[in-house]
Amino acid sequence: MPVPDAEESLARWGGPSDAPELPSRVRDYLAQQVGVARAWPPAEPASWQPIPSRVPRSVADALRLAVGDDHVSDARADRLAATGGAAFIDYARRRSGTIDDVPDLVVRPGTHDEVMRVLAVAREHSVAVVPVGGGTSVVGGLRTDTPRIALALDRLGRLLHLDEVSGIATVGPAVTGPVLEALLQARGYTLGHLPQSWERATIGGYVATRSAGQSSTGYGRSDDMVESLLVATPEGTLELGRGPSTAAGPDLRGLLIGSEGAFGVITRVGLRVRRLPEHRIYDAVLLPGFATGVEAFRDATQSRATADVMRLSDEAETATTLLMSGPTGLARAALERYARARGVELASASLAILGWEGTDRDLVRARRAATWRALRRHGGVSLGHGPGESWRRHRFDGPHLRDALMDAGYLVETLETATHWSSYLSLHAQVTSVLDDALGPRPGPYVMSHLSHAYETGASLYTTVIAVADRIDPVAQWQRAKSATSDALVAAGATITHHHAVGRDHAPWLAAEVGSLGVSILRAAKGAVDPDGLLNPGVLGL
Amino acid sequence: MPVPDAEESLARWGGPSDAPELPSRVRDYLAQQVGVARAWPPAEPASWQPIPSRVPRSVADALRLAVGDDHVSDARADRLAATGGAAFIDYARRRSGTIDDVPDLVVRPGTHDEVMRVLAVAREHSVAVVPVGGGTSVVGGLRTDTPRIALALDRLGRLLHLDEVSGIATVGPAVTGPVLEALLQARGYTLGHLPQSWERATIGGYVATRSAGQSSTGYGRSDDMVESLLVATPEGTLELGRGPSTAAGPDLRGLLIGSEGAFGVITRVGLRVRRLPEHRIYDAVLLPGFATGVEAFRDATQSRATADVMRLSDEAETATTLLMSGPTGLARAALERYARARGVELASASLAILGWEGTDRDLVRARRAATWRALRRHGGVSLGHGPGESWRRHRFDGPHLRDALMDAGYLVETLETATHWSSYLSLHAQVTSVLDDALGPRPGPYVMSHLSHAYETGASLYTTVIAVADRIDPVAQWQRAKSATSDALVAAGATITHHHAVGRDHAPWLAAEVGSLGVSILRAAKGAVDPDGLLNPGVLGL
Repeated sequence: MPVPDAEESLARWGGPSDAPELPSRVRDYLAQQVGVARAWPPAEPASWQPIPSRVPRSVADALRLAVGDDHVSDARADRLAATGGAAFIDYARRRSGTIDDVPDLVVRPGTHDEVMRVLAVAREHSVAVVPVGGGTSVVGGLRTDTPRIALALDRLGRLLHLDEVSGIATVGPAVTGPVLEALLQARGYTLGHLPQSWERATIGGYVATRSAGQSSTGYGRSDDMVESLLVATPEGTLELGRGPSTAAGPDLRGLLIGSEGAFGVITRVGLRVRRLPEHRIYDAVLLPGFATGVEAFRDATQSRATADVMRLSDEAETATTLLMSGPTGLARAALERYARARGVELASASLAILGWEGTDRDLVRARRAATWRALRRHGGVSLGHGPGESWRRHRFDGPHLRDALMDAGYLVETLETATHWSSYLSLHAQVTSVLDDALGPRPGPYVMSHLSHAYETGASLYTTVIAVADRIDPVAQWQRAKSATSDALVAAGATITHHHAVGRDHAPWLAAEVGSLGVSILRAAKGAVDPDGLLNPGVLGL
Repeated sequence: MPVPDAEESLARWGGPSDAPELPSRVRDYLAQQVGVARAWPPAEPASWQPIPSRVPRSVADALRLAVGDDHVSDARADRLAATGGAAFIDYARRRSGTIDDVPDLVVRPGTHDEVMRVLAVAREHSVAVVPVGGGTSVVGGLRTDTPRIALALDRLGRLLHLDEVSGIATVGPAVTGPVLEALLQARGYTLGHLPQSWERATIGGYVATRSAGQSSTGYGRSDDMVESLLVATPEGTLELGRGPSTAAGPDLRGLLIGSEGAFGVITRVGLRVRRLPEHRIYDAVLLPGFATGVEAFRDATQSRATADVMRLSDEAETATTLLMSGPTGLARAALERYARARGVELASASLAILGWEGTDRDLVRARRAATWRALRRHGGVSLGHGPGESWRRHRFDGPHLRDALMDAGYLVETLETATHWSSYLSLHAQVTSVLDDALGPRPGPYVMSHLSHAYETGASLYTTVIAVADRIDPVAQWQRAKSATSDALVAAGATITHHHAVGRDHAPWLAAEVGSLGVSILRAAKGAVDPDGLLNPGVLGL
C-alpha cells in the first residue's frame, strides 16, 4: 500500500516549511491586540501511540476476501492516514499527544461492488464503517473513538467520463480539487469549486458535506453541481439523478447530499462542469464600512448583478488584510489619501474582492459593469486589479497561516453561518460580541468576519477568531466559545452552518435547526438504508 | 361558505365563453392532419351524481369542534369544489358523467393550529386527508375514490409578510399566482413563477409538486424559490429553512418540496421574490430546424448567456403556431422570403421565444446581446419583438384552447420530461415516435414539442399530442399512449416528469426513477410523519 504522509498531515495543515514566517509587525500587532503568546511546539507525530486495533481478526480476514489482501491494513501508518480532522481542536489535541480517534482497520475498496461487499462484511460482524475522503472535516465528521473500519476511498479517484455535450464530469469520490481541475482544464472545462480545503478535500467529501467554495456565488455550491449520485448502502445501491431537474417527488438526491457518510458511501458523482473561462477580471474595492458594504452586496445580488466571487471583509478583517499584505509607510499614506478623497476612511473601511469569469468577453465586462453600478451607488472605491489578483493567488494560504499562528501559541479557529439580509448586520454584531465575551477579557480575542457567498435573500458570514491559546485546556477553551456562538446562531434564527457541515461538533444544535420531527425523519431515512446503524455512527447526532 | 363555481371548473378549464372559436383553417388542418372528429358535447355538471358522503357523522362533529361549524360541509357544491384534476382523462371522465373522485367531507381550517387539529381528528377516526389547493393536478394528484376528508386550504390564502430587505414574501399556501402577483407588484416585487395553470394553481400546490413555469430558466423553479416552509403533520409541526442556504445535514426542505400532500400539509411558505423588472425585452427568433435550435440553446446556457424565458418549438409546433397566429397570404410569402434570404426555410424552421427582464437596463441589454451572440452562431434569425410580446399576452391560452379542441371531439394532452443535452434529440425523436405508434394509424396523432426550461446540462421537453378522441373509451386510449411514453422515458434515462409531479398517474414509474431503495426511503420518511398513512394515500405510490 502506498503510504501517504499521514503523520505530517495530521500534525498540521501543511509541512513546516509551508507555513509563512510571521512578519514582526504582525507579531507586534497580535501581542498588542490579542496578547503575548508562548511558542507552541509543533506536534511530534512519532510520539503518538494509537491504541491497538480493536476489530477482530475475523473481520480483517473477511474484508481481505472482499477487496483483496493488499487493501486491508491495520498498520500504524495506514490507520493514521485514514484519521481525519482539521479543526483547531483536532490539532490542539494532537499537539498534546492525544490521538484517540484513529480507526482500527483500513479497507480500500476499488469498485462500487467492493464497497458493497465491505458493507456486507461490516453488517455481518456488526462493526461500524466510516467512509474517509480527504480527512479535512472541521466539525468532527470523522472524530470518534468507536471501534470501526475506515473505508478509505482513495482507489475510487478517477475522472470516469466527461460528457462534453452536456457538460457533466463523472468522477470517483476520491478525486481532489487540484487533480480534477488539472484533468478538466486540459480538456477546456472547470468545476469552479474552491473550498478552503481545496488542496486536500475530495469530491465525495464536498458532496457529503454540502460544501461551498470561494466562487460559489457564481459557480454554485457543491449541492448545485451534483447531477447524479451512486451510493452504496447496507440495504442496497441508490442511483439518483436523471436529467438536469425533475419533479418526480421529494428530492432524494438532496437527502443524500450532506448525509456525511451516515446514509451510505458515495461511490460515483456526476458533476456539472463549465467551459473554462477565457476572461477573468478580479477587482478590489473599498467600501465605507461593513454595513454599507453589505448594502452594496445586497443591492448587487437583488439587481441580479452578481460577480462570481463576492467577498466582503468587515473592518477588523480589512485592517488585518492591510496589515498582512497592504502597503506600508508612504505608500500606505498615499492609499489613505486616495481613499479619503473618494469618501472612504481607510481605518474604518471594508475591503471587497470581486471576480467575474466567463467565456464571453463582452458578457463578463457587462456583468462587471452592472456590479460596479451597484457598488458605486454605495460609495465603492476601486483599488484596481492588483489586490484582487493577489487575493486569488493567496486564496489557499489561510490554513498554512493557521499553522504558523498555532506554532506561535495562538488559538485560531473559524466558524460560519448564513442568514437573510434583514438580520445580517445584527447577527454579525452578535457573533462578534459572543466570541469577545467567551474568549475575553481584553486584550484578545481578535474577531474578524467576512461575507463570502451572496444570495438574493441573504449571505454567508464567516468569522475568524484569534486568541492566546489556553495551554492547559485549549480544547475546552474553544468549545466554550463555540458553544456560546452556536447558541446565539440558533437563537437568532440563523443556520448552524452554511458550509462546514454538522459532523459531531454541530450535532447538538441540529434539532434546533430542523426540529425534533426533522431529526425523526433523518433517523427514519437512515433506518431505511442502514438499519443496524453502522455508518459513521454519531455524525449528524444519529 | 362561499361556493366557488365548482361544477364549471371541473367540466372544463375555463367557462364556455373563454374557449376560442377554432378558425376554419385550423379545423381543416386538424381534419387533414389528425382526422375528422365528431363534436363532443361539453359536460353537464348538473347530471353528475356524487356518491353520498361515506365519512361518519362523528367525524364531521369532531371537525366542527376543531375548526368551527361554518367550515365543515358535505354539501354537493362544497364537495365538488374540493375535487380536482385537470388532465385530459379527468375531463374525459366527467364528459361521460363519471365523477367518482369527489371527497366525502370538506373542512376549511383557518390557521396552522386548526390544520393540526384536523389531522388529530383524522388520526383518531382513521380517515384519510387530502389537502386541496387549486385542484389543477394533471397527474391525478387528487384523483382517488378512497373515503376521505378534503382539507381545503382557501382560508390560508394571504400574503402574511413581505421582507423587502431580504426579498422574501411569506404567504399562506392558498394564494394563487394572480393574487400574489397583484399584491407583490403593488409593492414593487414579483415572484415570476408562471406555470400554465397560473390562473388557478396555488403557491402550496407549486411547492407540493415542485412546479416550474414559463420563466423558470431565469426565475428558477418553485423549489429554487422556497426559503422556508411550515408543515403540519400528524406527528407534529415541521419548520424548515433558516437562512438562504445551509450545510446542516441532508436537505429536509427539499424532501418536503414535492411531497404532494403525502408527508404533511404546507401551511406557510417563505418565497424569494424579486424586484419588479422595469425593463423587459421579448424576441421571437427563427432557427433552421429544431436540432440546430437545441444546439443554439445549449450554447447559450453553457456560455451562461441565458434569457429568463427560453422556449424553442420543434418543427411541428412551429408549423402549428404559424397556422394559429402567423401571417397568411402575401404576408406569409413575405415572411418566407425574409427567412429564406437569411438561410432559414420557414417550412422546417424552429421558432424560439426569448425574454430578458430586470431592473438594470444595461444589464438586460447586455444579457440579450450575449444570448443573441449564441443564437447567431447557429443561424438564428430575428422576427422582432412582435411575436414574442404576442406569445407573452397569450401565454395562458393553452388550457382554453384544449377546451375548444375537446368540444370539437379531439383528445388533447401534454406530457413532459427533461434530459441531458447529449440525449435530448434522441429523446425527442423517441417520444414523438412512441406517441405516433400508440395513437396511430395516420391520419393522426399530431405530436409537437417544445423546450421550455434550459439548464446548463440539459433541458425540459414538453410534448402536446392531438388525436381524434376514441369516444368509446378515451381514458384507455390516452392511458395506453401515456404508459408507452413513460416506459420509453424510463428506458432512455430521462426523468418521468420535469414539472407535472408524480400524483397517481406517474406513480408506477417512480421506482424506476429513484430505485426501490429510494422508494423505501420515501416510505420511511412518510412513516416518521404520518405513521397511519392517512395523508393523500396512493399519491407517489405510497
